[in-house]
Amino acid sequence: MTVKISHTAEVQQFFEEAAGFGNDAGSPRLKRIVQRLLQDTARLIEDLEISEDEFWHAVDYLNRLGGRGEAGLLVAGLGIEHFLDLLQDAKDQQAGLVGGTPRTIEGPLYVAGAPIAEGEVRMDDGSEEGVATLMYLEGRVLDPQGRPLPGATVDLWHANTRGTYSFFDQSQSEYNLRRRIVTDAQGRYRARSIVPSGYGCDPQGPTQECLDLLGRHGQRPAHVHFFISAPGHRHLTTQINLAGDKYLWDDFAYATRDGLVGEVVFVEGEAGRHAELKFDFQLQRAQGGADEQRSGRPRALQEA
Amino acid sequence: MTVKISHTAEVQQFFEEAAGFGNDAGSPRLKRIVQRLLQDTARLIEDLEISEDEFWHAVDYLNRLGGRGEAGLLVAGLGIEHFLDLLQDAKDQQAGLVGGTPRTIEGPLYVAGAPIAEGEVRMDDGSEEGVATLMYLEGRVLDPQGRPLPGATVDLWHANTRGTYSFFDQSQSEYNLRRRIVTDAQGRYRARSIVPSGYGCDPQGPTQECLDLLGRHGQRPAHVHFFISAPGHRHLTTQINLAGDKYLWDDFAYATRDGLVGEVVFVEGEAGRHAELKFDFQLQRAQGGADEQRSGRPRALQEA
Repeated sequence: MTVKISHTAEVQQFFEEAAGFGNDAGSPRLKRIVQRLLQDTARLIEDLEISEDEFWHAVDYLNRLGGRGEAGLLVAGLGIEHFLDLLQDAKDQQAGLVGGTPRTIEGPLYVAGAPIAEGEVRMDDGSEEGVATLMYLEGRVLDPQGRPLPGATVDLWHANTRGTYSFFDQSQSEYNLRRRIVTDAQGRYRARSIVPSGYGCDPQGPTQECLDLLGRHGQRPAHVHFFISAPGHRHLTTQINLAGDKYLWDDFAYATRDGLVGEVVFVEGEAGRHAELKFDFQLQRAQGGADEQRSGRPRALQEA
Repeated sequence: MTVKISHTAEVQQFFEEAAGFGNDAGSPRLKRIVQRLLQDTARLIEDLEISEDEFWHAVDYLNRLGGRGEAGLLVAGLGIEHFLDLLQDAKDQQAGLVGGTPRTIEGPLYVAGAPIAEGEVRMDDGSEEGVATLMYLEGRVLDPQGRPLPGATVDLWHANTRGTYSFFDQSQSEYNLRRRIVTDAQGRYRARSIVPSGYGCDPQGPTQECLDLLGRHGQRPAHVHFFISAPGHRHLTTQINLAGDKYLWDDFAYATRDGLVGEVVFVEGEAGRHAELKFDFQLQRAQGGADEQRSGRPRALQEA
């Protein structure tokens, strides 16, 4: 018979003590969160009859996960990051905040402080010439009425042909495939870059270890990440996922959404084959200054 | 108004998909556990209205926690490891498995493979002579009827005068203050060692960062850890916590228990002051072979 004690007054009181309810210092908010985490953890252990070995394997897993810096990858792979988008969509719906380009997950591979340019920029360092397919990416940033937004910031980043990201892949040059583009007078951004390959979790990493045990792959379709911001408008975190990729609708991170599929057109030109991708973004009006900013998620910053 | 979506069929189905319910590969057990974790996490986010910033701060915290290998320290500090003892006590009670020395937490600082000796051993490497107080620690291992158990293994480890442990504190010699003693014909073990100081969490570490926000200290009383095992008897993980320590009943890891307080006697001898500590352990009979072993918790092993 299953033995349970977590509901008893004695254990509840113990968790309150452990969560710092017995003192006036610290953060009342964190105390409340930790109390709930303790209650949930204890109930899970009891309900699923988690063995000692299972518990300590999980603790060891957390050390290995953090040791590899993969906590952000795991929350994407387990769908929690997508859940946050679904929840925010529902909150927006309730508040009547509709319209514009859908949001989708940021993922864990952004690096702050990329080079900034007006209107047009080249993103790749040329190191994959001959291997990569040249890609021209362009579009406009629009306001809720569909009018062009000059001076909007398009902060974009994507993988190389091996599906890896500069900074995290130390073999790439600084800020390779990471740029900020300020839209021109017509609200346009233009980038010359290369067609990215899909991202895959490190096969030796703890995230893939978990996915293997869930019978799941750890692959993403080819995609380009975006932060779009403009004064007076709501910050947008989103992605373009490339049509035709076998993982487009089988994305381990659940980031592909209707309205976020980019149609890549391959063109045979005089200088060889290249790709063209056009994508417009539409922002919502900001309800307050905080809306104009991305979340305070801790992010990597390239050291000078 | 709080918006909630985690109870909807759509979101429940999404979590099942993310937990691998849609395929036949992998581990059905882990799928079930992950499904529950997803449900609990989503409910916690909704119920406590966890903000994006709070969520990503928690993800970043997990990376930093694992990056420092402190997951085992945090589960001790938040009382989850003690809860596991309380739960096992309740299961034992229900099964009629009573009597003997109480169990208490192992903590995260054991290292397997310590030198083994018969009956008597010196544990310290002499590096703290002049600073440390000499300690003679001895006692017996008894069976459920109170009869001495010869050939039992007493695997013990403790901190130095600075409260740090060899292996984790690289400045100490290999296996300093870690030994295995096989009891003699009278069931006795004897160790010459030094009086340990209490352990304190790294003030710069993520565990102490959390405890600070809970308004809690991260200190333990001086103590000695034990694994006791003997053929036909149930493995015992326990500790002696030293009487007189200011943290004896204010232990951040909740390891001190009735029946586990060691009375240290200080003696002025011809060669100076030394401490004496006597402590007998009583084991339960094993119900099966697995009972004779400690848990399969992943543990450190000193490299040769």
